[in-house]
Amino acid sequence: MTQINKNYLNLKESYLFFDIAKRVKNYENEHPGKKIIRMGIGDVSLPLCPAVITEMQEAVAEMGKAETFHGYGPEQGYSFLKKPIMEYYQTFGVFLEEDEVFVSDGAKSDLGNILDLFSKENTVLIPDPVYPVYVDTNIMDGRKIIYLKADQDNHFLPMPQENIQGDIIYLCSPNNPTGAAYSKAQLKEWVDFALSHNSLILFDAAYEAFISDDSPHSIYEIEDAKQCAIEFCSFSKTAGFTGTRCGYTIVPMALHFQDVSINHLWLRRQTTKFNGVSYVVQRAAKAVFSAEGQRQTKKNIEYYKRNAKLMADTMERLNIWYTGGKNSPYVWIRCPHQMSSWEFLDYLLEKIQVVGTPGEGFGKNGAGYFRFSAFSSYEDTIEAMERFYNLFQLNELPDLTK
Amino acid sequence: MTQINKNYLNLKESYLFFDIAKRVKNYENEHPGKKIIRMGIGDVSLPLCPAVITEMQEAVAEMGKAETFHGYGPEQGYSFLKKPIMEYYQTFGVFLEEDEVFVSDGAKSDLGNILDLFSKENTVLIPDPVYPVYVDTNIMDGRKIIYLKADQDNHFLPMPQENIQGDIIYLCSPNNPTGAAYSKAQLKEWVDFALSHNSLILFDAAYEAFISDDSPHSIYEIEDAKQCAIEFCSFSKTAGFTGTRCGYTIVPMALHFQDVSINHLWLRRQTTKFNGVSYVVQRAAKAVFSAEGQRQTKKNIEYYKRNAKLMADTMERLNIWYTGGKNSPYVWIRCPHQMSSWEFLDYLLEKIQVVGTPGEGFGKNGAGYFRFSAFSSYEDTIEAMERFYNLFQLNELPDLTK
Repeated sequence: MTQINKNYLNLKESYLFFDIAKRVKNYENEHPGKKIIRMGIGDVSLPLCPAVITEMQEAVAEMGKAETFHGYGPEQGYSFLKKPIMEYYQTFGVFLEEDEVFVSDGAKSDLGNILDLFSKENTVLIPDPVYPVYVDTNIMDGRKIIYLKADQDNHFLPMPQENIQGDIIYLCSPNNPTGAAYSKAQLKEWVDFALSHNSLILFDAAYEAFISDDSPHSIYEIEDAKQCAIEFCSFSKTAGFTGTRCGYTIVPMALHFQDVSINHLWLRRQTTKFNGVSYVVQRAAKAVFSAEGQRQTKKNIEYYKRNAKLMADTMERLNIWYTGGKNSPYVWIRCPHQMSSWEFLDYLLEKIQVVGTPGEGFGKNGAGYFRFSAFSSYEDTIEAMERFYNLFQLNELPDLTK
Repeated sequence: MTQINKNYLNLKESYLFFDIAKRVKNYENEHPGKKIIRMGIGDVSLPLCPAVITEMQEAVAEMGKAETFHGYGPEQGYSFLKKPIMEYYQTFGVFLEEDEVFVSDGAKSDLGNILDLFSKENTVLIPDPVYPVYVDTNIMDGRKIIYLKADQDNHFLPMPQENIQGDIIYLCSPNNPTGAAYSKAQLKEWVDFALSHNSLILFDAAYEAFISDDSPHSIYEIEDAKQCAIEFCSFSKTAGFTGTRCGYTIVPMALHFQDVSINHLWLRRQTTKFNGVSYVVQRAAKAVFSAEGQRQTKKNIEYYKRNAKLMADTMERLNIWYTGGKNSPYVWIRCPHQMSSWEFLDYLLEKIQVVGTPGEGFGKNGAGYFRFSAFSSYEDTIEAMERFYNLFQLNELPDLTK
């Protein structure tokens, strides 16, 4: 008799965005005509840039002719994309071998699938709050999870503690949902900690393109990190590829556990359970690294960063505690008047028709916090922040009974 | 200390196509100028059809404009693709709910990832010879594997045996590598067997588009199969999508084990570890189902089937035992003169410069057999079969010392 993976029964049903959508829909139904500004979802709004579109069209045309048609490609991705990725890493002083680069259909897939390579007996350290996928993928595997507490005291940047040890450590910097970014010194502490305990760091760098200061873009900017870290990157936010699906995962040759090459294991996993990313999508990603592609995608990122700064500035003026907004499209605020995350969602919807994401949806340490995203239009962001400022500038205690 | 998944150490290094390529390269180096005809690899050669190209171009253009840009899509795929898939199933009398259809980036990914849902304690039944991925993905999980013997006696179509029981049963029909296809009566035996033992059938229908007789296109043509089977389909061979990456997996609502809905588990797995297939690729797949798309892709399949028939006819004339060629792009032959698979590879390379795939690469029951694929050009197939016929028509015992 076929037995299911019983760990799946331990998953919490996650209805975060579903519940938010339901509340928004109810409000819309009761208040038709009111303009709702959505700043909750982490999806881009600007289209793919012209350089990417042009390259994709060429690639599609090639697929229609026998002489230029591409069938099965190498599972780890084409050289024409891996080489520019390597060059991109060189711009922040990191030198990779081509075989260390694996083209993915996005960080989410590889973050889940990398766990195939590691025993269920490993303990994992996961920040709280954080992108929920890290927790769920480990519950599915039945691993023991220890949460790294992120809070206002540590600016939502948890640091190593000797009494909290884990075999697999998740770090996301710049962070989703908080927008906080580790400094080089802080990441060095984590790398040293992992090296001394023979642990693995899974470093999610999906938002590295938003960095504005000298926070590291890659864990490999830290000395010896190649011996303890796998890095996950994505074109989703960097180039608007949320619906196009492409990213890259770096598995260094120097990374070994129990004398086994992790690069070798990942290659084996991918050549067995994956057939590579679509040719036209890899060509699209390649265009991101052309001079025009870089110019255009950076312009889009500046567009979002302008929104993020607008939100951060608004919180500053209102003296509301926040992180993010500087190295990230997210701003993470302490809900005013000690409102709970969900009270705050309802309050904003009711009073000013602005939607964000309750911090509690990212973990229990997110309770009392709230996330805004910078992916709306500039005009909508201005309007949302004006409404927000007007609502809170008087700093009156809201009557939550109304 | 981080522990790896030790099951990976049990994997055999697979160098099948690497070894073949090496021998071919050596021959080429020693005999420059000789025309080698490659009939080994299972990759398509005809380009994407015009209807698909046109739709992809439109989709790419949409991605370049804010009003029509697509960001994150539903992980299980867009309705615009799931609906035509459901209509396609209706043409062979199978009625599905939209939520039973999951768009994939190809059968290979889903065949590997579906195992996430099932305990490592399950025993799996896998035919031998067969597509090597079924074996490797289960070795990675540490499951016990029992091989179903496929041979000339059962026409490489193993049937249920009461003394051989397994929780997860792999069936691939039409088969890779043998090209053999189960009849409806035979599949009914398997479905009844699975139902009576509360087992799961994983049905790989990647080659269903090549069926020429009344062999079932879908396991669900068998009554009650929805209660025991998951079906994996692909656009790779159906529409030449080997480099474009799209398929679909059917997980029926009626499928439960231990009172748990497998459809529910798969949705959870995919929403957690996957972010959906690229929008432009789903649009490309949608075009396959348009009237023009059907006409054009069927024309390409007829092109390959003509090659397959040519190969099958050649074996008939030479009185060489074979299966396939009728419902499949593969022809699977008993090597003449009791040559081993690898001796035969070398012999063909040496004598007539035709490359195929040694059957042994697909499992130990493939020893002494050989696979040819129909994906070359018609002209090359004719030439290869002429060379083959001339070599074997005299039926002389080859001097393998030469």
